[in-house]
Amino acid sequence: MNRGDPFSVLPLIERALTSYVERLDVGTRLRDAIAYSLLSGGKRLRPVLAWHACEAAGGEAVDALPACVALELVHCFSLVHDDLPAMDDDDLRRGIPTLHKHAGEAMAILAGDAMMTLAFEPLTTDAVSPKLGKRGELCVRLVRDLVVATTGMISGQVYDTIPGTAPGGSALERVRVIHKHKTGALIRASCTMGGSCAQLSGGGRDEDVAALGRFGDAVGLMFQIVDDLIDLEQPSELVGKRTGKDEEAGKLTYPLAYGGGAEGARQCRDEVAKLKASALAELDRFGAKAEALRELVDFLATRTK
Amino acid sequence: MNRGDPFSVLPLIERALTSYVERLDVGTRLRDAIAYSLLSGGKRLRPVLAWHACEAAGGEAVDALPACVALELVHCFSLVHDDLPAMDDDDLRRGIPTLHKHAGEAMAILAGDAMMTLAFEPLTTDAVSPKLGKRGELCVRLVRDLVVATTGMISGQVYDTIPGTAPGGSALERVRVIHKHKTGALIRASCTMGGSCAQLSGGGRDEDVAALGRFGDAVGLMFQIVDDLIDLEQPSELVGKRTGKDEEAGKLTYPLAYGGGAEGARQCRDEVAKLKASALAELDRFGAKAEALRELVDFLATRTK
Repeated sequence: MNRGDPFSVLPLIERALTSYVERLDVGTRLRDAIAYSLLSGGKRLRPVLAWHACEAAGGEAVDALPACVALELVHCFSLVHDDLPAMDDDDLRRGIPTLHKHAGEAMAILAGDAMMTLAFEPLTTDAVSPKLGKRGELCVRLVRDLVVATTGMISGQVYDTIPGTAPGGSALERVRVIHKHKTGALIRASCTMGGSCAQLSGGGRDEDVAALGRFGDAVGLMFQIVDDLIDLEQPSELVGKRTGKDEEAGKLTYPLAYGGGAEGARQCRDEVAKLKASALAELDRFGAKAEALRELVDFLATRTK
Repeated sequence: MNRGDPFSVLPLIERALTSYVERLDVGTRLRDAIAYSLLSGGKRLRPVLAWHACEAAGGEAVDALPACVALELVHCFSLVHDDLPAMDDDDLRRGIPTLHKHAGEAMAILAGDAMMTLAFEPLTTDAVSPKLGKRGELCVRLVRDLVVATTGMISGQVYDTIPGTAPGGSALERVRVIHKHKTGALIRASCTMGGSCAQLSGGGRDEDVAALGRFGDAVGLMFQIVDDLIDLEQPSELVGKRTGKDEEAGKLTYPLAYGGGAEGARQCRDEVAKLKASALAELDRFGAKAEALRELVDFLATRTK
């Protein structure tokens, strides 16, 4: 693998996702809807994080594939439900019509539900890898991590979507809670689940997984602040989804919580720099094995879409 | 426990559900929405089945509590999403407004999502019982059963909600596929998961759990045929939810698949009698330990709401 590009694993991840969907026994129409959402591109950030976290924790990266598939299923479920008319009401996602525009609202609700429950399958069966199903304790640990992450993500979605529900006094406190849950929980889980999978090849020590969790916390918050900046500053055509919608919807974002305008954006960039430094510090213990994660942090801090 | 009434365990099940919800760390509003759905009564059929299946398979029934909570979470998630405007669009459930009427559509989508993912928590942590979390293989088996059941249920919901998706030639074949998935899958899992929990106290042999699975298949189909008859014949006031809606929505039901009218209803009652006999036959192996399950089958075959 080319260490210089953390995304060079994408073909392997795409293949795992495609072959998982092909073998799904859920009826043609539901499988088509799942394929539409799951196989329509995207950054695959969570699987890529899990892959390299496994490597950093001393594992064979390929052992993280069940976690990669599980994480992307949860992520895509959340996108499909977030896009629904009763939620963010988005028509465009990854440059194509959202699932409820493509297949109807009922199917979008049900396909989201199905992806969420299916996420637990690769973690406890040989649907993706025959190795994991024989390791009861590791399966249980992965299921637990995914439950905590998904529940956290959904809480965050409540805080973000339903006015007045986010706890915290200041705008900055509230936006931190929203982001920590809505985006951060699953990114944290990507790192810990990937790290835990390293147990399949003799790695994945508890203290290493814990460090990866702290790394994930910093990366998750950084990712979301950058996302807020992109929504504020970049045109829809470039990003492949509608931008400027946070402001339009009156949503609390990081730049706004910092007072908005050029000064808000500047403070966000400072915060991104600090979080990047914290994330990188957590990787020191892993030496060269974390090189791909370092590249990934660089990319995430500077991306514009 | 009074063997004459399989529902005499309800207070214990209600207590487990209430205490589970009270300890949920998902923010006040989301917890309130979950409590509204999960703690608003209902027959608790799936937990009651799991409880008595555990007993039949030679276990301490109380060991089935984690499965009971998981099953009711999945069941309530499915009700909340089924009631949504884009699905069955129901205003009334268990005699009170449906969750989307009570708390808004976004909250109903998110609370359903949360209940579904939370269902995996009692199966892998000490959230409901401290005993289970230490038994990795059993946890994995329970998670697998729940994934299969929930995915099957969602497929069934697709077949039922989205015209032209149900496989099968004749109306009877299609309605069997719909019911087997939509209702049958989770009722089957109630029996197998309850039976597997018997392993915690030395029971739960594979062949007994398999027999409970076949028992659950017969009970599930029987339950749904009776449900179709109730929808056809009973007034809403008695049932606590809108009835007559299958016909109104042009949904395929068992009485209709049998040609409708008095003759369709008569054939349904014949089928119920046959399924009841099959279900009871599977219980022979368990002797007196299955007495509560026998009472339950009697009740389910003759209920009118």
